[in-house]
Amino acid sequence: MSGKKKKAIVLLSGGMDSATTLAIAGAEGYECYALSFRYGQRHIREIEAAKKIAALFKVAEYRIIDIDLGSIGGSALTEPGIEVPKNGQKLSEIPITYVPARNTIFLSYALAWAEVLGSFDIFIGVNAVDYSGYPDCRAEFIEAFERMANLATALAVKAKEKYSVHTPIINMSKAQIVLRGRQLDVDFSLTHSCYDPDSQGRSCGRCDSCRLRLKGFAEAGLKDPIEYRTTNTK
Amino acid sequence: MSGKKKKAIVLLSGGMDSATTLAIAGAEGYECYALSFRYGQRHIREIEAAKKIAALFKVAEYRIIDIDLGSIGGSALTEPGIEVPKNGQKLSEIPITYVPARNTIFLSYALAWAEVLGSFDIFIGVNAVDYSGYPDCRAEFIEAFERMANLATALAVKAKEKYSVHTPIINMSKAQIVLRGRQLDVDFSLTHSCYDPDSQGRSCGRCDSCRLRLKGFAEAGLKDPIEYRTTNTK
Repeated sequence: MSGKKKKAIVLLSGGMDSATTLAIAGAEGYECYALSFRYGQRHIREIEAAKKIAALFKVAEYRIIDIDLGSIGGSALTEPGIEVPKNGQKLSEIPITYVPARNTIFLSYALAWAEVLGSFDIFIGVNAVDYSGYPDCRAEFIEAFERMANLATALAVKAKEKYSVHTPIINMSKAQIVLRGRQLDVDFSLTHSCYDPDSQGRSCGRCDSCRLRLKGFAEAGLKDPIEYRTTNTK
Repeated sequence: MSGKKKKAIVLLSGGMDSATTLAIAGAEGYECYALSFRYGQRHIREIEAAKKIAALFKVAEYRIIDIDLGSIGGSALTEPGIEVPKNGQKLSEIPITYVPARNTIFLSYALAWAEVLGSFDIFIGVNAVDYSGYPDCRAEFIEAFERMANLATALAVKAKEKYSVHTPIINMSKAQIVLRGRQLDVDFSLTHSCYDPDSQGRSCGRCDSCRLRLKGFAEAGLKDPIEYRTTNTK
């Protein structure tokens, strides 16, 4: 690619999906601006992971925005009184770890930053295959957000270009994400997925997020390099 | 209206438009949950106004959420280095007081709170007549947000009901807003509109927001009850 690189905002949670998404955005030639949120999540440890991944991929800028989702509540991820389920996923239901309107809020901030930077590209590592039951991870939601973004912003109204919300891993299985990430030098030992890590940051191996992650590595025929606090990691 | 009241989230900035919108939501029989934001706006005084208006209309709950738009920048309202224009509006252009993706972010938080409360109704006092040039005040943006909201949330996916974003004053002139507000007992002396108040909270009378407000009262044949720091209030 010649000339000046196009800028992209990449939402970076610190998990394996967003790390792979960042690697893909970079491989596609974008100059990446990574964005994380402290939103009262009990697995705040993921921010440490996000920082390391942002550094690994030498992003142009990395920002952490503090947002107050805890005061709104409604999720096991933000309310200490609600327990993170550890009994295996029921894929037909929306889990209690769903955070109300979270991706809508995250994408709205990404849109604001994109507009200020003059960027028309936002990357988000949502995934609809190992379906987590989160409505705001589906392609139809992303398309509706994109459409709204093009009506919301001064930049889109003035410019001929349109916003794109890129979801490069939306149709990959977790195993495919592991393999693609590996290809692009994602160091998965830096990533964090567990919803309920212990005080040393070790993953539980039993929440939905750990289960999906472990299944992905197993299906890819690889060993997950992170540390789990239990030996029962099936 | 009989039975239990329906809940609505009302975005309340402290200005005359959102105060009138809150009054309308109440008059329509909703139990109102008012929401304001501290987003680094230089006219933080408007939050004091919002509190008083929320109390006047005895809202079921009033919340202020701190959000960090200042760090994103890009607007005269959030960047101390950019001056608020005082030379009269150019209605054909998007003004520098536009805050990137602000209404998208505000509505996203409202959506999160609505979902937690089990509400399907959000009120926002956007206005497209005395056109401020903000793209996120237009009906087509609101409709796109509504559509996106119905795909974003667990509640909308599970329930048969759909989110409505109500914009009761979108087609009113500022004079009509003044008259409607008066009818519904909005105390306009409590409201604040100025983008650049002085340290005593007095309005400048010259920014776009003051100009529109003063024009509205003049056309309604009424005196604006708030204090201006200049006699040159044209």
